[in-house]
Amino acid sequence: MPDTHLQIRLASRPKGWVEESNFRVVEAPIPAVRDGEVLLRNHWLSLDPYMRGRMNDTKSYAAKVEIDDVMVGGTVSEVVESKNPKFAAGDFVVAMGGWQEYATSDGAGLQKVDARLPLSSYLGAVGMPGVTAHIGLFDIGAPKAGETVVVSAAAGAVGSIVGQLAKIRGARAVGIAGGKAKCDYVVSELGFDACVDYKSPDFMDALVAATPSGIDVYFENVGGAVLDAVLTRLNPFARIPLCGLVSQYNATEPYRVKGLGSLLINRVKLQGFIVVDETSKWPAALRDLAGWVAEGKIRCRETIAEGIRSAPRAFIGMLKGENVGKQLVKLV
Amino acid sequence: MPDTHLQIRLASRPKGWVEESNFRVVEAPIPAVRDGEVLLRNHWLSLDPYMRGRMNDTKSYAAKVEIDDVMVGGTVSEVVESKNPKFAAGDFVVAMGGWQEYATSDGAGLQKVDARLPLSSYLGAVGMPGVTAHIGLFDIGAPKAGETVVVSAAAGAVGSIVGQLAKIRGARAVGIAGGKAKCDYVVSELGFDACVDYKSPDFMDALVAATPSGIDVYFENVGGAVLDAVLTRLNPFARIPLCGLVSQYNATEPYRVKGLGSLLINRVKLQGFIVVDETSKWPAALRDLAGWVAEGKIRCRETIAEGIRSAPRAFIGMLKGENVGKQLVKLV
Repeated sequence: MPDTHLQIRLASRPKGWVEESNFRVVEAPIPAVRDGEVLLRNHWLSLDPYMRGRMNDTKSYAAKVEIDDVMVGGTVSEVVESKNPKFAAGDFVVAMGGWQEYATSDGAGLQKVDARLPLSSYLGAVGMPGVTAHIGLFDIGAPKAGETVVVSAAAGAVGSIVGQLAKIRGARAVGIAGGKAKCDYVVSELGFDACVDYKSPDFMDALVAATPSGIDVYFENVGGAVLDAVLTRLNPFARIPLCGLVSQYNATEPYRVKGLGSLLINRVKLQGFIVVDETSKWPAALRDLAGWVAEGKIRCRETIAEGIRSAPRAFIGMLKGENVGKQLVKLV
Repeated sequence: MPDTHLQIRLASRPKGWVEESNFRVVEAPIPAVRDGEVLLRNHWLSLDPYMRGRMNDTKSYAAKVEIDDVMVGGTVSEVVESKNPKFAAGDFVVAMGGWQEYATSDGAGLQKVDARLPLSSYLGAVGMPGVTAHIGLFDIGAPKAGETVVVSAAAGAVGSIVGQLAKIRGARAVGIAGGKAKCDYVVSELGFDACVDYKSPDFMDALVAATPSGIDVYFENVGGAVLDAVLTRLNPFARIPLCGLVSQYNATEPYRVKGLGSLLINRVKLQGFIVVDETSKWPAALRDLAGWVAEGKIRCRETIAEGIRSAPRAFIGMLKGENVGKQLVKLV
């Protein structure tokens, strides 16, 4: 066991796009374990869009990261020392271990994982992104067989699962993603019925062609001009689970949406949600997801960066849509 | 009984603001009554914002009015001749009698009214505007005692009732209206806790002052910049019944909303609704409303234009916010 480890701390708050200079790498002592605590070695770090909000000095749904604090993040971690009777060295847990190589925990919120699935899946399809897709699509979107479900950021960690869940429910799944490679992946590997490239000049025509019966559920991850395009295709009584607005997180001036009249004319329900509010729904959702992953009904590529020092660049890349599927940092 | 009567027909579709030249007055024969039909003499015509949408040649939640058709509209009407066993001459009914002095009906959708309340109230607090307020506020907004309810177009037919219903539920009621006279009316006569003038240069500061605990329910009638102002004041888990966007109905370029991030951060539910979808809820809502009107717990001023020829000008005035309370045309 080393005496020190590496951490990524918030050095400054971004103005607009995040830059690597907003972070700094710190070599810090590995903390001593007190009674009731465990020492965790982080094996996998999850990078997620919500982290961008934590970097701002503004009100959000969760506490901001203070300057010089370690960046927050979900991890799959190994218990390497335990003074907590609920955990033993060698256990693997899902934790909020942060952007660092080691962390201590009093055990609160740690979830032991079942080693039958790949460890990294607990940060993806069988973790927060999967539960986000499950709750947003099934509880808010509530698609019926034969309806059309559209999801933006369809090649991302959440979006890729949304479409596969829609197919499991018998709905038509249409993705929106950036570029031909992602769209091909979404259709060929994930089994969506269609995927439309929002960067293409004929995006609107392609969206119309891919949704010949209109749109019944729009799972929103991005906002901006893509939202305005979708608003023109909504059917009466459509539902919009509002999960993210990643196109806006680095915008210094927000995109201004013009098509809200569609929400009135079509009597649409739009519902913002945050998966951490819905703790009571996690166990059942995770059981569903673990089963479908084990059966091969849900799959998701991973984009893997190596080593904690790579986290800032990988995070910026994810915000720009450079990843396919779940963005992870492999620490061990 | 005369042989002819006056009708207001759609002469042309408006581009932007409605003009009187979009209508024309026609003297037409009073139709003969066939078996199963009744002849109605319209006493009161209701003028409502939804009619603006019917004038457009675009998809909306209800069929458009064709060029040269009589404008649609709700009426309180007297049965003057009946060949339908369910109705007798002398009955008063709520009907979709249209912008005209007489109409025939096969009886479908006619609702007999109880003459203990003023006839015009069946087009206001005990009619579509009242039911709209009831369903939108109680079923979608669901305010709890002590929460803050904000309603735009607060001096209008729907908004004035929304605030009074909020008070009945024990919530704080804050109106938004145009001009000091309307705001005074909303507070002094209707009993709202506060009312903010959106035309005032210090609108935003006044909205903040009137909502010291934030906003839990926003009953939306207008859209535009008022919506953006309210979005900055929403509390977590706020609800937005989306009833109308009257600021946009005559806009050639829609206002572009910048603050949708609040819907995500605060996990807000926004739900568009149209009262005619909710037929099963009308009887219970009307019972509540009739009771509260009879007890004096709900009141609403009326702005009354005289004679069918006055309807176009009164309608344009209502869209511009010149009325206070319910806009009616008195035909008899």
